[in-house]
Amino acid sequence: MHHVRFRDPTGAVRRGEWHGDSVSFGGERYDLDTVDVLPPCEPSKIVCIGLNYADHAAEQDSDLPDRPLLFLKAPNAVAGHGDTVTLPAGKERIEWEAELGVVIGEQCRNVPGESAMDVVAGFTCLNDISNRDDQRREKNWVRGKAFDGAAPLGPVVADPEHVPGDASVELRVNGETRQSSDRSNLIFSIPELIAEITTYLTLEPGDVISTGTPAGVGALADGDEVEVEIEGVGTLAHSVRVP
Amino acid sequence: MHHVRFRDPTGAVRRGEWHGDSVSFGGERYDLDTVDVLPPCEPSKIVCIGLNYADHAAEQDSDLPDRPLLFLKAPNAVAGHGDTVTLPAGKERIEWEAELGVVIGEQCRNVPGESAMDVVAGFTCLNDISNRDDQRREKNWVRGKAFDGAAPLGPVVADPEHVPGDASVELRVNGETRQSSDRSNLIFSIPELIAEITTYLTLEPGDVISTGTPAGVGALADGDEVEVEIEGVGTLAHSVRVP
Repeated sequence: MHHVRFRDPTGAVRRGEWHGDSVSFGGERYDLDTVDVLPPCEPSKIVCIGLNYADHAAEQDSDLPDRPLLFLKAPNAVAGHGDTVTLPAGKERIEWEAELGVVIGEQCRNVPGESAMDVVAGFTCLNDISNRDDQRREKNWVRGKAFDGAAPLGPVVADPEHVPGDASVELRVNGETRQSSDRSNLIFSIPELIAEITTYLTLEPGDVISTGTPAGVGALADGDEVEVEIEGVGTLAHSVRVP
Repeated sequence: MHHVRFRDPTGAVRRGEWHGDSVSFGGERYDLDTVDVLPPCEPSKIVCIGLNYADHAAEQDSDLPDRPLLFLKAPNAVAGHGDTVTLPAGKERIEWEAELGVVIGEQCRNVPGESAMDVVAGFTCLNDISNRDDQRREKNWVRGKAFDGAAPLGPVVADPEHVPGDASVELRVNGETRQSSDRSNLIFSIPELIAEITTYLTLEPGDVISTGTPAGVGALADGDEVEVEIEGVGTLAHSVRVP
Protein backbone atom coordinates (compact mmCIF):
# COMPACT_ATOMS: atom_id res chain seq x y z
CA MET A 1 0.00 0.00 0.00
CA HIS A 2 0.97 3.62 -0.62
CA HIS A 3 -0.18 5.80 2.28
CA VAL A 4 -1.15 9.41 1.68
CA ARG A 5 -2.36 12.29 3.83
CA PHE A 6 -4.67 14.70 2.08
CA ARG A 7 -7.29 17.37 2.66
CA ASP A 8 -10.55 16.26 1.07
CA PRO A 9 -12.96 18.64 -0.71
CA THR A 10 -14.74 19.38 2.61
CA GLY A 11 -11.42 20.37 4.22
CA ALA A 12 -11.09 17.27 6.39
CA VAL A 13 -7.60 15.84 6.75
CA ARG A 14 -7.55 12.14 5.84
CA ARG A 15 -4.98 9.36 5.99
CA GLY A 16 -5.85 7.25 2.99
CA GLU A 17 -4.50 5.35 0.03
CA TRP A 18 -2.76 6.64 -3.08
CA HIS A 19 -3.75 5.24 -6.46
CA GLY A 20 -1.60 7.40 -8.75
CA ASP A 21 -4.30 9.60 -10.24
CA SER A 22 -6.66 9.43 -7.28
CA VAL A 23 -6.70 8.94 -3.51
CA SER A 24 -9.23 7.17 -1.30
CA PHE A 25 -10.47 7.14 2.26
CA GLY A 26 -13.48 5.47 3.89
CA GLY A 27 -14.74 4.00 0.63
CA GLU A 28 -14.67 7.38 -1.16
CA ARG A 29 -12.33 7.99 -4.07
CA TYR A 30 -11.18 11.50 -5.03
CA ASP A 31 -9.44 12.66 -8.17
CA LEU A 32 -6.03 14.07 -7.32
CA ASP A 33 -6.96 17.52 -8.59
CA THR A 34 -9.83 17.79 -6.08
CA VAL A 35 -7.67 17.31 -2.96
CA ASP A 36 -4.62 18.87 -1.35
CA VAL A 37 -1.88 16.30 -0.93
CA LEU A 38 -0.16 16.87 2.44
CA PRO A 39 3.20 15.59 3.66
CA PRO A 40 2.53 11.87 4.26
CA CYS A 41 3.92 11.93 7.80
CA GLU A 42 4.45 14.52 10.52
CA PRO A 43 8.00 14.08 11.79
CA SER A 44 9.02 15.44 15.17
CA LYS A 45 12.49 15.52 13.59
CA ILE A 46 14.23 14.53 10.38
CA VAL A 47 17.60 12.90 10.96
CA CYS A 48 19.63 13.42 7.82
CA ILE A 49 22.76 11.63 6.69
CA GLY A 50 25.60 13.46 4.93
CA LEU A 51 28.05 11.92 2.47
CA ASN A 52 26.41 8.51 2.28
CA TYR A 53 27.15 7.90 -1.42
CA ALA A 54 30.79 7.71 -2.53
CA ASP A 55 30.19 9.61 -5.79
CA HIS A 56 28.60 12.56 -3.98
CA ALA A 57 31.40 12.69 -1.39
CA ALA A 58 33.86 12.85 -4.31
CA GLU A 59 32.01 15.70 -6.04
CA GLN A 60 32.03 17.60 -2.71
CA ASP A 61 35.80 16.95 -2.29
CA SER A 62 34.98 15.29 1.03
CA ASP A 63 36.50 12.21 2.60
CA LEU A 64 34.11 9.39 3.42
CA PRO A 65 33.08 9.58 7.07
CA ASP A 66 34.10 6.70 9.35
CA ARG A 67 30.63 6.70 10.86
CA PRO A 68 27.34 8.24 9.69
CA LEU A 69 27.46 12.04 9.45
CA LEU A 70 24.21 13.07 11.18
CA PHE A 71 22.39 16.38 11.08
CA LEU A 72 18.87 17.52 11.98
CA LYS A 73 15.97 19.29 10.35
CA ALA A 74 13.02 20.37 12.48
CA PRO A 75 9.31 20.32 11.49
CA ASN A 76 9.55 23.84 10.03
CA ALA A 77 11.56 22.31 7.17
CA VAL A 78 8.75 20.03 5.99
CA ALA A 79 7.04 20.81 2.67
CA GLY A 80 4.75 18.61 0.61
CA HIS A 81 4.09 17.28 -2.88
CA GLY A 82 2.93 20.07 -5.15
CA ASP A 83 4.24 22.84 -2.92
CA THR A 84 6.29 25.81 -4.01
CA VAL A 85 9.24 26.24 -1.67
CA THR A 86 10.39 29.82 -1.12
CA LEU A 87 14.17 29.68 -0.81
CA PRO A 88 16.19 31.93 1.53
CA ALA A 89 16.75 35.30 -0.14
CA GLY A 90 20.01 36.63 -1.47
CA LYS A 91 21.96 33.38 -1.73
CA GLU A 92 24.32 32.42 -4.56
CA ARG A 93 23.89 28.68 -4.49
CA ILE A 94 21.02 26.59 -3.14
CA GLU A 95 21.14 23.01 -4.37
CA TRP A 96 18.88 19.98 -4.76
CA GLU A 97 19.68 16.62 -3.15
CA ALA A 98 17.41 13.66 -3.94
CA GLU A 99 17.17 11.22 -1.06
CA LEU A 100 15.40 8.06 0.00
CA GLY A 101 13.47 8.83 3.20
CA VAL A 102 12.87 6.12 5.79
CA VAL A 103 9.67 6.72 7.76
CA ILE A 104 9.62 5.31 11.28
CA GLY A 105 6.55 3.38 12.42
CA GLU A 106 6.96 3.09 16.17
CA GLN A 107 8.71 4.74 19.10
CA CYS A 108 12.11 3.09 19.40
CA ARG A 109 15.52 3.35 21.06
CA ASN A 110 18.62 1.12 21.03
CA VAL A 111 17.40 -0.85 18.03
CA PRO A 112 19.84 -3.59 16.95
CA GLY A 113 20.67 -3.65 13.24
CA GLU A 114 19.30 -7.17 12.88
CA SER A 115 15.77 -6.08 13.76
CA ALA A 116 15.93 -2.49 12.53
CA MET A 117 13.59 -3.01 9.59
CA ASP A 118 10.85 -3.86 12.11
CA VAL A 119 10.58 -0.19 13.11
CA VAL A 120 10.29 1.04 9.51
CA ALA A 121 6.79 2.04 8.38
CA GLY A 122 7.91 2.59 4.81
CA PHE A 123 9.74 4.83 2.38
CA THR A 124 9.24 8.25 0.88
CA CYS A 125 11.02 10.69 -1.44
CA LEU A 126 12.81 13.71 0.02
CA ASN A 127 14.70 16.66 -1.40
CA ASP A 128 17.37 17.76 1.11
CA ILE A 129 17.55 21.35 -0.18
CA SER A 130 20.91 22.80 0.77
CA ASN A 131 21.88 26.45 1.04
CA ARG A 132 25.61 26.14 0.35
CA ASP A 133 26.37 29.83 1.03
CA ASP A 134 25.59 29.33 4.70
CA GLN A 135 26.39 25.63 4.98
CA ARG A 136 30.02 26.38 4.11
CA ARG A 137 30.23 29.08 6.79
CA GLU A 138 28.57 27.39 9.74
CA LYS A 139 29.61 24.65 12.12
CA ASN A 140 26.13 23.11 12.37
CA TRP A 141 24.03 23.28 9.22
CA VAL A 142 20.99 25.20 10.48
CA ARG A 143 20.82 28.13 8.06
CA GLY A 144 22.28 25.76 5.47
CA LYS A 145 19.90 22.83 5.78
CA ALA A 146 17.07 23.51 8.27
CA PHE A 147 15.40 26.61 6.83
CA ASP A 148 11.64 26.61 6.19
CA GLY A 149 10.76 24.26 3.34
CA ALA A 150 14.21 22.64 3.17
CA ALA A 151 12.69 19.15 3.22
CA PRO A 152 9.94 18.59 0.65
CA LEU A 153 8.81 14.99 1.12
CA GLY A 154 6.17 12.64 -0.21
CA PRO A 155 3.89 12.11 -1.94
CA VAL A 156 3.38 8.81 -0.09
CA VAL A 157 4.81 6.42 2.43
CA ALA A 158 5.22 3.17 0.52
CA ASP A 159 5.17 -0.08 2.43
CA PRO A 160 8.69 -1.56 2.49
CA GLU A 161 7.86 -4.52 0.26
CA HIS A 162 7.27 -2.17 -2.70
CA VAL A 163 10.81 -0.78 -2.60
CA PRO A 164 13.55 -3.14 -3.79
CA GLY A 165 17.02 -3.20 -2.23
CA ASP A 166 18.38 -1.61 -5.39
CA ALA A 167 15.47 0.81 -5.92
CA SER A 168 16.44 3.60 -8.31
CA VAL A 169 16.74 7.15 -6.88
CA GLU A 170 16.44 9.82 -9.53
CA LEU A 171 16.04 13.58 -9.63
CA ARG A 172 14.89 15.70 -12.54
CA VAL A 173 14.86 19.48 -12.85
CA ASN A 174 12.49 20.85 -15.48
CA GLY A 175 12.28 17.35 -16.93
CA GLU A 176 16.03 16.80 -17.25
CA THR A 177 17.64 14.00 -15.23
CA ARG A 178 20.34 15.35 -12.91
CA GLN A 179 20.77 12.57 -10.34
CA SER A 180 20.49 8.84 -10.92
CA SER A 181 21.61 6.16 -8.51
CA ASP A 182 20.09 3.42 -6.42
CA ARG A 183 19.56 2.34 -2.83
CA SER A 184 22.25 -0.34 -3.01
CA ASN A 185 24.91 2.40 -3.23
CA LEU A 186 24.31 3.66 0.31
CA ILE A 187 27.58 3.50 2.26
CA PHE A 188 25.82 3.02 5.61
CA SER A 189 22.78 0.78 5.16
CA ILE A 190 19.36 1.59 6.56
CA PRO A 191 19.68 -0.90 9.46
CA GLU A 192 23.12 0.51 10.29
CA LEU A 193 21.69 4.04 10.33
CA ILE A 194 18.77 3.11 12.57
CA ALA A 195 21.06 1.28 15.00
CA GLU A 196 23.50 4.20 15.19
CA ILE A 197 20.87 6.93 15.55
CA THR A 198 18.84 5.07 18.18
CA THR A 199 21.97 4.57 20.29
CA TYR A 200 21.56 8.28 21.09
CA LEU A 201 18.05 9.41 20.10
CA THR A 202 14.56 8.00 20.50
CA LEU A 203 12.75 7.92 17.16
CA GLU A 204 9.01 8.56 17.07
CA PRO A 205 6.33 7.36 14.64
CA GLY A 206 6.47 9.62 11.60
CA ASP A 207 10.09 10.61 12.11
CA VAL A 208 12.16 10.44 8.94
CA ILE A 209 15.73 9.34 8.33
CA SER A 210 16.94 10.87 5.08
CA THR A 211 19.65 8.57 3.80
CA GLY A 212 21.90 10.91 1.84
CA THR A 213 22.21 11.96 -1.79
CA PRO A 214 24.13 10.59 -4.77
CA ALA A 215 26.23 12.63 -7.22
CA GLY A 216 24.68 15.22 -9.47
CA VAL A 217 23.69 18.03 -7.13
CA GLY A 218 23.32 21.46 -8.68
CA ALA A 219 21.90 24.92 -8.14
CA LEU A 220 18.19 25.69 -8.12
CA ALA A 221 16.78 28.70 -9.95
CA ASP A 222 13.53 30.60 -9.61
CA GLY A 223 10.64 28.64 -11.09
CA ASP A 224 12.46 25.31 -11.30
CA GLU A 225 10.23 22.24 -11.25
CA VAL A 226 11.87 19.43 -9.27
CA GLU A 227 10.91 15.76 -9.31
CA VAL A 228 12.37 13.10 -7.02
CA GLU A 229 11.41 9.64 -8.24
CA ILE A 230 12.14 6.51 -6.24
CA GLU A 231 11.33 3.09 -7.61
CA GLY A 232 8.43 1.56 -5.73
CA VAL A 233 7.54 4.84 -4.00
CA GLY A 234 6.59 7.24 -6.78
CA THR A 235 7.42 10.81 -7.67
CA LEU A 236 7.59 13.84 -5.39
CA ALA A 237 7.13 17.03 -7.41
CA HIS A 238 7.62 20.57 -6.13
CA SER A 239 8.72 23.90 -7.46
CA VAL A 240 10.94 26.62 -6.01
CA ARG A 241 10.68 30.34 -5.83
CA VAL A 242 13.65 32.64 -5.32
CA PRO A 243 12.38 35.82 -3.64
CA MET B 1 3.26 35.01 36.58
CA HIS B 2 5.27 31.78 36.57
CA HIS B 3 3.62 29.22 34.27
CA VAL B 4 3.94 25.52 35.02
CA ARG B 5 2.72 22.32 33.41
CA PHE B 6 2.00 19.51 35.81
CA ARG B 7 0.15 16.23 36.20
CA ASP B 8 -2.33 16.58 39.04
CA PRO B 9 -3.12 13.77 41.53
CA THR B 10 -5.85 12.41 39.20
CA GLY B 11 -3.36 12.21 36.31
CA ALA B 12 -4.73 15.18 34.37
CA VAL B 13 -2.17 17.42 32.69
CA ARG B 14 -2.71 21.04 33.70
CA ARG B 15 -1.21 24.38 32.68
CA GLY B 16 -1.29 26.36 35.87
CA GLU B 17 0.62 28.70 38.11
CA TRP B 18 3.75 28.06 40.16
CA HIS B 19 3.92 29.35 43.73
CA GLY B 20 7.29 27.94 44.81
CA ASP B 21 6.07 25.23 47.17
CA SER B 22 2.75 24.62 45.43
CA VAL B 23 1.06 24.88 42.04
CA SER B 24 -2.51 25.82 41.17
CA PHE B 25 -5.06 25.33 38.43
CA GLY B 26 -8.77 26.09 38.25
CA GLY B 27 -8.95 27.38 41.80
CA GLU B 28 -7.29 24.23 43.22
CA ARG B 29 -3.89 24.39 44.90
CA TYR B 30 -1.60 21.36 45.12
CA ASP B 31 1.50 20.84 47.21
CA LEU B 32 4.49 20.28 44.97
CA ASP B 33 5.06 16.80 46.33
CA THR B 34 1.59 15.67 45.18
CA VAL B 35 2.09 16.51 41.49
CA ASP B 36 4.52 15.68 38.68
CA VAL B 37 6.09 18.84 37.33
CA LEU B 38 6.36 18.54 33.54
CA PRO B 39 8.50 20.55 31.12
CA PRO B 40 6.72 23.94 31.05
CA CYS B 41 6.50 24.04 27.24
CA GLU B 42 6.52 21.53 24.40
CA PRO B 43 9.01 22.78 21.82
CA SER B 44 8.86 21.53 18.25
CA LYS B 45 12.56 22.43 18.26
CA ILE B 46 15.15 23.99 20.52
CA VAL B 47 17.46 26.39 18.71
CA CYS B 48 20.67 26.57 20.71
CA ILE B 49 23.41 29.15 20.56
CA GLY B 50 27.07 28.19 20.91
CA LEU B 51 29.84 30.43 22.22
CA ASN B 52 27.63 33.34 23.27
CA TYR B 53 29.65 34.32 26.36
CA ALA B 54 33.24 35.47 25.89
CA ASP B 55 34.53 33.67 29.00
CA HIS B 56 33.14 30.32 27.83
CA ALA B 57 34.57 30.75 24.32
CA ALA B 58 37.95 31.38 25.97
CA GLU B 59 37.75 28.25 28.15
CA GLN B 60 36.89 26.24 25.00
CA ASP B 61 39.85 27.80 23.11
CA SER B 62 37.37 29.01 20.51
CA ASP B 63 37.27 32.27 18.61
CA LEU B 64 34.14 34.34 19.01
CA PRO B 65 31.79 33.71 16.10
CA ASP B 66 31.03 36.62 13.76
CA ARG B 67 27.35 35.68 13.80
CA PRO B 68 25.36 33.42 16.14
CA LEU B 69 26.50 29.79 16.10
CA LEU B 70 23.21 27.88 15.79
CA PHE B 71 22.49 24.22 16.45
CA LEU B 72 19.33 22.19 17.00
CA LYS B 73 17.89 19.85 19.59
CA ALA B 74 14.70 17.93 18.79
CA PRO B 75 11.85 17.10 21.21
CA ASN B 76 13.56 13.84 22.26
CA ALA B 77 16.10 15.99 24.12
CA VAL B 78 13.54 17.54 26.47
CA ALA B 79 13.59 16.55 30.15
CA GLY B 80 11.88 18.19 33.09
CA HIS B 81 12.39 19.50 36.58
CA GLY B 82 13.01 16.65 38.99
CA ASP B 83 13.94 14.18 36.27
CA THR B 84 16.93 11.88 36.26
CA VAL B 85 18.67 12.09 32.89
CA THR B 86 20.36 8.90 31.74
CA LEU B 87 23.51 9.96 29.91
CA PRO B 88 24.89 8.17 26.83
CA ALA B 89 26.92 5.16 27.93
CA GLY B 90 30.67 4.77 27.74
CA LYS B 91 31.66 8.42 27.37
CA GLU B 92 34.65 10.09 29.01
CA ARG B 93 33.29 13.60 29.33
CA ILE B 94 29.69 14.81 29.39
CA GLU B 95 29.39 18.37 30.66
CA TRP B 96 26.81 20.74 32.12
CA GLU B 97 25.99 24.09 30.50
CA ALA B 98 23.58 26.42 32.32
CA GLU B 99 21.57 28.56 29.93
CA LEU B 100 18.79 31.12 29.86
CA GLY B 101 16.00 29.70 27.69
CA VAL B 102 13.72 32.02 25.73
CA VAL B 103 10.26 30.53 25.21
CA ILE B 104 8.42 31.68 22.09
CA GLY B 105 4.77 32.71 22.41
CA GLU B 106 3.53 32.91 18.84
CA GLN B 107 4.28 31.59 15.38
CA CYS B 108 6.72 34.02 13.80
CA ARG B 109 9.10 34.54 10.88
CA ASN B 110 11.26 37.47 9.77
CA VAL B 111 10.91 39.24 13.12
CA PRO B 112 12.80 42.56 13.27
CA GLY B 113 15.04 43.02 16.29
CA GLU B 114 13.08 46.11 17.38
CA SER B 115 9.90 44.09 17.96
CA ALA B 116 11.47 40.74 18.81
CA MET B 117 10.49 40.81 22.48
CA ASP B 118 6.83 40.81 21.36
CA VAL B 119 7.11 37.13 20.35
CA VAL B 120 8.65 36.07 23.69
CA ALA B 121 6.29 34.28 26.08
CA GLY B 122 8.86 34.22 28.84
CA PHE B 123 12.05 32.68 30.18
CA THR B 124 13.07 29.31 31.56
CA CYS B 125 16.20 27.55 32.82
CA LEU B 126 17.93 25.01 30.60
CA ASN B 127 20.92 22.70 30.94
CA ASP B 128 22.51 22.17 27.52
CA ILE B 129 24.10 18.84 28.42
CA SER B 130 27.03 18.23 26.08
CA ASN B 131 28.70 14.94 25.24
CA ARG B 132 32.17 16.21 24.37
CA ASP B 133 33.49 12.80 23.23
CA ASP B 134 31.18 12.88 20.24
CA GLN B 135 30.83 16.64 19.86
CA ARG B 136 34.56 16.89 19.12
CA ARG B 137 34.35 14.19 16.44
CA GLU B 138 31.25 15.25 14.54
CA LYS B 139 30.49 18.02 12.08
CA ASN B 140 26.96 18.61 13.38
CA TRP B 141 26.44 18.08 17.09
CA VAL B 142 23.75 15.39 17.08
CA ARG B 143 25.34 12.65 19.19
CA GLY B 144 27.07 15.45 21.09
CA LYS B 145 24.11 17.67 21.94
CA ALA B 146 20.79 16.15 20.80
CA PHE B 147 20.68 12.83 22.63
CA ASP B 148 17.67 11.90 24.75
CA GLY B 149 17.46 14.12 27.83
CA ALA B 150 20.16 16.55 26.65
CA ALA B 151 17.91 19.53 27.43
CA PRO B 152 16.39 19.52 30.92
CA LEU B 153 14.31 22.68 31.17
CA GLY B 154 11.95 24.35 33.57
CA PRO B 155 10.52 24.39 36.12
CA VAL B 156 8.48 27.35 34.82
CA VAL B 157 8.09 29.87 32.07
CA ALA B 158 8.42 33.23 33.83
CA ASP B 159 6.76 36.26 32.28
CA PRO B 160 9.46 38.57 30.87
CA GLU B 161 8.89 41.34 33.41
CA HIS B 162 10.17 39.07 36.20
CA VAL B 163 13.60 38.62 34.60
CA PRO B 164 15.88 41.66 34.69
CA GLY B 165 18.28 42.52 31.87
CA ASP B 166 21.16 41.50 34.09
CA ALA B 167 19.44 38.46 35.63
CA SER B 168 21.98 36.14 37.25
CA VAL B 169 22.55 32.70 35.64
CA GLU B 170 24.04 30.20 38.03
CA LEU B 171 24.69 26.46 38.08
CA ARG B 172 25.39 24.29 41.07
CA VAL B 173 26.46 20.66 41.16
CA ASN B 174 25.80 18.88 44.44
CA GLY B 175 25.33 22.28 46.03
CA GLU B 176 28.60 23.77 44.82
CA THR B 177 28.49 26.78 42.49
CA ARG B 178 30.23 26.03 39.19
CA GLN B 179 28.88 28.68 36.83
CA SER B 180 27.91 32.23 37.69
CA SER B 181 27.23 34.97 35.19
CA ASP B 182 24.35 37.12 34.05
CA ARG B 183 22.16 37.84 31.06
CA SER B 184 23.91 41.12 30.27
CA ASN B 185 27.03 39.17 29.22
CA LEU B 186 25.37 37.59 26.18
CA ILE B 187 27.39 38.47 23.07
CA PHE B 188 24.36 38.30 20.77
CA SER B 189 21.31 39.71 22.54
CA ILE B 190 17.95 37.99 22.61
CA PRO B 191 16.42 40.32 19.98
CA GLU B 192 19.44 39.78 17.74
CA LEU B 193 19.08 36.01 18.10
CA ILE B 194 15.35 36.06 17.31
CA ALA B 195 15.91 38.27 14.26
CA GLU B 196 18.71 36.06 12.94
CA ILE B 197 16.94 32.73 13.52
CA THR B 198 13.62 33.86 12.05
CA THR B 199 15.37 35.03 8.89
CA TYR B 200 15.62 31.31 8.13
CA LEU B 201 13.24 29.36 10.39
CA THR B 202 9.66 29.83 11.53
CA LEU B 203 9.42 29.63 15.31
CA GLU B 204 6.34 28.07 16.89
CA PRO B 205 4.68 28.69 20.27
CA GLY B 206 6.62 26.70 22.85
CA ASP B 207 9.84 26.64 20.85
CA VAL B 208 12.90 27.50 22.90
CA ILE B 209 16.01 29.50 22.07
CA SER B 210 18.79 28.52 24.44
CA THR B 211 21.09 31.48 24.62
CA GLY B 212 24.47 29.89 25.37
CA THR B 213 26.48 29.16 28.48
CA PRO B 214 29.05 31.14 30.50
CA ALA B 215 32.41 29.83 31.74
CA GLY B 216 32.61 27.07 34.29
CA VAL B 217 31.50 23.96 32.42
CA GLY B 218 32.66 20.64 33.79
CA ALA B 219 32.08 16.92 33.69
CA LEU B 220 29.01 15.23 35.14
CA ALA B 221 29.29 12.07 37.22
CA ASP B 222 26.78 9.37 38.14
CA GLY B 223 24.36 10.63 40.78
CA ASP B 224 25.19 14.32 40.40
CA GLU B 225 22.44 16.73 41.42
CA VAL B 226 22.36 19.75 39.13
CA GLU B 227 20.62 23.05 39.76
CA VAL B 228 20.27 25.87 37.23
CA GLU B 229 19.05 29.03 38.92
CA ILE B 230 18.08 32.12 36.97
CA GLU B 231 17.07 35.30 38.73
CA GLY B 232 13.38 35.93 38.30
CA VAL B 233 12.72 32.45 36.90
CA GLY B 234 13.63 30.05 39.69
CA THR B 235 15.62 26.85 39.97
CA LEU B 236 15.62 23.85 37.65
CA ALA B 237 16.84 20.77 39.50
CA HIS B 238 17.65 17.41 37.94
CA SER B 239 20.01 14.53 38.51
CA VAL B 240 22.03 12.38 36.14
CA ARG B 241 22.67 8.70 35.87
CA VAL B 242 25.65 7.22 34.05
CA PRO B 243 24.67 3.73 32.89
